[in-house]
Amino acid sequence: MSLLEHVEEPADLRTLSHAQLADLAEEIRRFLVRHVSETGGHLGPNLGVVELTLALHRCFDSPRDTLLWDVGHQAYVHKLVTGRAAGFARLRHRGGLSGYPSRTESVHDHIEHSHASMALSYADGMAKARQLSGDTERHIVAIVGDGALTGGAAWEALNNIAAAPERPLVIVVNDNGRSYAPTVGGLARHLGALRLHAGYERLLGWGRQALDSAGIPGQSVYRALHAAKQGLKDVLAPQVLFEDLGLKYLGPVDGHDIPALEEALERAKAYPAPVIVHCVTRKGRGYRPAEEDATDHFHGVGVIDPVTGNPLRPGGLSWSAAFGGELISVASERRDVVAITAAMPGSVGLTDFAERYPSRFFDVGIAEQHAVASAAGLAMGGLHPVVALYGTFLNRALDQVLMDLALHRLGVTLAIDRAGVTGDDGPSHNGLWDLVLLQAVPGLRIAAPRDLPTLAEELGEALEVSDAPTAVRFPRGAVGQAVPSLRRTGGVDVLRESLGGGILLVGVGVMARTALEAADRCARQGVETTVVDPRWVKPLPPELLRLAARHSVVVTVEDGLRTGGVGTALMQALREAGIDVDVRVLGMAEGFPEQGTRAELLTEAGLTAQGIAEAVISVAGVALTA
Amino acid sequence: MSLLEHVEEPADLRTLSHAQLADLAEEIRRFLVRHVSETGGHLGPNLGVVELTLALHRCFDSPRDTLLWDVGHQAYVHKLVTGRAAGFARLRHRGGLSGYPSRTESVHDHIEHSHASMALSYADGMAKARQLSGDTERHIVAIVGDGALTGGAAWEALNNIAAAPERPLVIVVNDNGRSYAPTVGGLARHLGALRLHAGYERLLGWGRQALDSAGIPGQSVYRALHAAKQGLKDVLAPQVLFEDLGLKYLGPVDGHDIPALEEALERAKAYPAPVIVHCVTRKGRGYRPAEEDATDHFHGVGVIDPVTGNPLRPGGLSWSAAFGGELISVASERRDVVAITAAMPGSVGLTDFAERYPSRFFDVGIAEQHAVASAAGLAMGGLHPVVALYGTFLNRALDQVLMDLALHRLGVTLAIDRAGVTGDDGPSHNGLWDLVLLQAVPGLRIAAPRDLPTLAEELGEALEVSDAPTAVRFPRGAVGQAVPSLRRTGGVDVLRESLGGGILLVGVGVMARTALEAADRCARQGVETTVVDPRWVKPLPPELLRLAARHSVVVTVEDGLRTGGVGTALMQALREAGIDVDVRVLGMAEGFPEQGTRAELLTEAGLTAQGIAEAVISVAGVALTA
Repeated sequence: MSLLEHVEEPADLRTLSHAQLADLAEEIRRFLVRHVSETGGHLGPNLGVVELTLALHRCFDSPRDTLLWDVGHQAYVHKLVTGRAAGFARLRHRGGLSGYPSRTESVHDHIEHSHASMALSYADGMAKARQLSGDTERHIVAIVGDGALTGGAAWEALNNIAAAPERPLVIVVNDNGRSYAPTVGGLARHLGALRLHAGYERLLGWGRQALDSAGIPGQSVYRALHAAKQGLKDVLAPQVLFEDLGLKYLGPVDGHDIPALEEALERAKAYPAPVIVHCVTRKGRGYRPAEEDATDHFHGVGVIDPVTGNPLRPGGLSWSAAFGGELISVASERRDVVAITAAMPGSVGLTDFAERYPSRFFDVGIAEQHAVASAAGLAMGGLHPVVALYGTFLNRALDQVLMDLALHRLGVTLAIDRAGVTGDDGPSHNGLWDLVLLQAVPGLRIAAPRDLPTLAEELGEALEVSDAPTAVRFPRGAVGQAVPSLRRTGGVDVLRESLGGGILLVGVGVMARTALEAADRCARQGVETTVVDPRWVKPLPPELLRLAARHSVVVTVEDGLRTGGVGTALMQALREAGIDVDVRVLGMAEGFPEQGTRAELLTEAGLTAQGIAEAVISVAGVALTA
Repeated sequence: MSLLEHVEEPADLRTLSHAQLADLAEEIRRFLVRHVSETGGHLGPNLGVVELTLALHRCFDSPRDTLLWDVGHQAYVHKLVTGRAAGFARLRHRGGLSGYPSRTESVHDHIEHSHASMALSYADGMAKARQLSGDTERHIVAIVGDGALTGGAAWEALNNIAAAPERPLVIVVNDNGRSYAPTVGGLARHLGALRLHAGYERLLGWGRQALDSAGIPGQSVYRALHAAKQGLKDVLAPQVLFEDLGLKYLGPVDGHDIPALEEALERAKAYPAPVIVHCVTRKGRGYRPAEEDATDHFHGVGVIDPVTGNPLRPGGLSWSAAFGGELISVASERRDVVAITAAMPGSVGLTDFAERYPSRFFDVGIAEQHAVASAAGLAMGGLHPVVALYGTFLNRALDQVLMDLALHRLGVTLAIDRAGVTGDDGPSHNGLWDLVLLQAVPGLRIAAPRDLPTLAEELGEALEVSDAPTAVRFPRGAVGQAVPSLRRTGGVDVLRESLGGGILLVGVGVMARTALEAADRCARQGVETTVVDPRWVKPLPPELLRLAARHSVVVTVEDGLRTGGVGTALMQALREAGIDVDVRVLGMAEGFPEQGTRAELLTEAGLTAQGIAEAVISVAGVALTA
C-alpha cells in the first residue's frame, strides 16, 4: 500500500502520523533511487532533504507561504508532494519534468533556475514587497545549502536581511557539510563547530522517544530538557556568527528527525524577525552507494545501476577529465602552474590534480568572484593560475575577468568547461554566453580546441601567455576521436580543402568536426567547401581574414549565441578591413533553450552536419549562381 | 618649513617624531584641499586616511611589504609619501597622475584599478603565492573600507583567508561608517557596536598623553591599562563576528591616533595568522565643509572653492538628477514603483526619491548582485523595481540580470548611469560594456535616451514593461538642451532627413546629438544625410532596418565598444534579413581608455561632430561614387 500515492498536495501530509511519515520517507527514497537511476539527475541532494521537505510542507502552507529552493536541484521531494510523481519517468528529458522548480509546472514553484546563493536575495525582495503590501501573514522560507553560504551573494543578502528585523523571514540552512565537494572556508569550520553540539539534539531526541514509547506524555518534559539544553549550549557555543549580524539562530537540528525539524520550524515561523534554522543532513542518506562514496559522485548522476550505483553508459574520456590530465602533465614541468576551482573539483576534472599537487590546488568555495580575483593575486605573486569553471558560472565573475585580469594584463588561464550547449540541466546551465561576453574583454585571448591533441596544444599555448588572460573553452561530454588537419597556416588548421575558392566553412572548437561532416554531405551534393578550425578565436587570426578574402561566402559555426560571438566578430572584421565577402553566422538563437540533450538542442538549432550542409547548400545556390 | 618636501620615500617617515608626524598630517591635509579643489578628485576619503597611511608606511616596509588599497581612490596620501607630490597639479588629468594606484607610477603600487571589495581576494592570492615560494618574511596588508565589506566578494575572500591560519595577512578595516552613503546592513550595526567601545581607546589615549606630558615614561603603565581594558572589552563585546570565522580581531583603534595605530599594526604584523585591525576614521577629517556635510558630497568632488567647498563650475542638470526627478514623477502615480541603489543614493540621483518615498527606497550596500536579485524578489511580489547602477558596476551583476531577471521574465528596470565613456575616473569606471554585454541577455530591452524629454518618455515606456527586464542607459554629465525630432516612424525618431537616400546616420542615445551636428558639417561639404535616433536599441526596431534598406550606407555612432554593440547588431540583422547595405560602425576601440575627460576620450576615438563628419564624408566619397 503506497503512502506516496495518497499525497497529492501538501495538505495530505498533515493528516499523517509521524510513524507514517517515516514510512513515507522510506518510500520516497526508493522512488527517487528507482527513477533517477533511470533518467539521471541530482540524486544525493534530494535523498538528503526528504524529511526536511516533509517537515517544511507540514509546517508551512504552500503556496500561500512561499518556499524558495536555492539552486533548485534539491526540489525533487517538493515536486513529489505537490502532485508531480508521474512526471519523474521523463525527468530532465525534452518536454518532461524539469530538474528544477518550474512555474509552468506548479503554483508551488517560484525561482525556476538560478545559480547558487541567490535564494536569500529573492526572499529579501519578497519580504520587502510583502511589507509594502501589508500582507504580513504569509511566510517566506528560503532553503539554502551550507555551500551556498560561501558565495558572496548570500552574504550580501544576509547583511540586508539582518538590517530589517521588522521583516520576518525563515532561512533554512541545509548543512550537509558539502555542496559539490566538502564545503570550504572559515564558515564551514564554524558550522562544523556548531554541528558538534548536535549530540545534544540526539540525546534529547532519544529522551523524548523513550518517554513517548513508554506512553508518558513527554512534551512538557521535553520542553524543560530543551530549555536547559539551550542555556547550556549558549554557554558552550554561542551562535554568534549569525546573531552578531542580528539574525536569530535556531539549531542545530537533526535534519532527518521530523518531530525535531517541526519543532524548530514552528518556533521559526512564530518568531517575529528573520531567523536561521540550522539543519544537519546527510547527502545521499539511505542509499548505500551514495553514503559510502567519499567523493560525492552522487551529487548528480547519469543513468546508473540502482543497486550498485555504477554508471550504465560510460561515455568515454570526458573533456573535463582530458583537461585535468593535460594540466597534470604541464604542471609536472611547470612549478608555477596552480589550479583553482569554485567548489567543483570533481566536475571540472581536477580531483587527480588536487591529489598530486595539494599545495598547488585551491578550492575557494562557491565563490567565482574570489576564484578569479585571487588568481589575479597569485599571478602578481609570480604564478600562472588556471581557473576551471563551468561556462555558465563564469558569468558570475565577468567583472573580475575585466577589471582584475584584463586591466592588469595578468597571465591567468580560464578553463571554461561546459561551454556552449549543455542540455539536460536546463536553461541555467548552458554556456551559451562565453564567446559573446568575453569578446568585450580587452586583450583576452580565447582558444577553442576541437579534440584531445588541440586541447593539449592550446592549453600549453595559453600557459605560455604571461601578459594577458587566456581562456580555453570546451564543451560537456566526451572528447571523441581526433580530427586531423591537412595543414596549418598562420595558426589556422585547414581540415578540408577545396581548390575552387567558393565556400569557406569555419568551425569553432568541437563544431569543426560537425562542419567537416557537413562538408562531406555538401560534397555529395556537388558543393565543395574548405573547412578550417581557427584554433584561437579571439583575437581572430589575420590568416583567417586572408582565407576568407579568397572565398565568396564564409559560413561560421559555433555552439554559442549566434549574435555577438566569433562569427559576428569575423563579419565585422572583414567589413572593417574592406573585404567584401558574404558571411553567414550559424549558432544558437537569442533565448534560453529548454531542457533536452545537447544533441537535441543542437539539432533544433540546425547545428548538425545535416543542418549545416543544408545552410551551406542554400547559400551556395544563391552565391555560386550570383 | 615643509615637512612634506622632506618625505621622498616611506623610510623618511620613520625618522620623524610623533609631534612631527602630527604636523605632517596637518600639512598633508592642507596640500590635499589645495590641490584637489583645483583638479577635482576623491577628497573626503583621503582626508580620512592621513594618519592611517602614515602609520602603515612606518610599520610596514613598502615595497618589500605589499600594501593593497581596496578600490584605490583613497591612495592620495600613499602617493604623497612615495614621492609623487609634484604630480598632484595634474591629478586625474590626461597624461597626469592617476587618481588610483598605478604600476607605471610607482613600485609601491599593485592593484591599479578594481571595483570595491576585491583587495582581500588579491591579498589571499598573494599570500598563497608567497607560501608556495617560501618567502614568508614579506607582509601583505589589505586596506578596505567598512562599505566594501558589504560586498559579497569580500565575504568570499574572508571565508578563504580564515580557512588558512598558516598564511598570515593583515586586513585593515578603514571604518568611517560610510562608503558613499552611510554603510548599511547587519554588518554596519555590528561595527557600530564595536565602535561604541572606542571610548576606551580615547580614555587610554588621554591617560597616556597625560603621563607622557608629565614626563613619566608611560609605556608600561599604558600596557597594564591596555591589558585590563582588553579583558573588560572581551567581556562586554566579544569580537566574535570575525573571530568565529577564525580571524583574529584587533580594535577598534582610533584611526587618527598615530601611536595607537602603530601599536595595533605592530601587533598585527607580529601575529602569525590572518588578523583584522579595525580602525575608526572620519571621512573628510580636518576639512570643515566636509565634516559639516551630512550627505557625503565630498566623497568625490569637481573643482571647488577650497574655503567653502562649493562647486565652482556647476554643470547644469545632470543626467542622474534628471533621472531621479523623472522617477519621483512616475512614482507619484505608480505606487508599485520602488528604487534600489547599491550604496550610491546621491551619485545616481536618488536622494530626493529616498526622502519622498523612504519605504519604497532600498540601499543594499555595495552589493550589486543583491541589488538585482532582490529586485527579482520584489518583482515577484508585484512591484516594479528600478535598480540604479553605474554602467561599470552593472558588470558585477550580469549573472543576476541573465538568470534572475531575464530567465524569469521579470519587469525590472535597470537605470544605467555613467554608461559609455566617463573619463577622469580612469579605466575602471568607464561604462563601455553595457551595450555589448546586455546584447547577450535574452528578452531584455534597452532604451538610450538622447535628452530630457526622451529620458522621461523612455523611462515611462520601460516601466510599462512587466514581462521582461528593461534598461535605460544614459551618460555622465549634463543633460543639455533637447534635440527635437522631425517625426517619429515605427518608434524611430527622425532628426534630420535627406531625400536623396544616400547615407543614414544612426545615433545611439546622446550620440544622436553629435550625429546631428556631424550632419550639419557634412551638409556644408555637400553630403546630405538622414539622422535617426532609434530610441530603443535592443531589440532593434524593424523600422530601423526598413530605413537602412532605403540607404546605400549606414553609419552608426555609439559611445561604447565598437564591436558587439548596437552597430554590430544592426550590421548582422541587415545581413540576416538579406538587406545588402554597407554598415560602418563608429564607437570605442577594444581596450581600456586612459584617464581624461569624456570630451578628450571621445575626440581621440573620433566620436565628435568633426570625427563623425570625416568618417561619413570618407564613406560617401567611396559609396556615392561607387
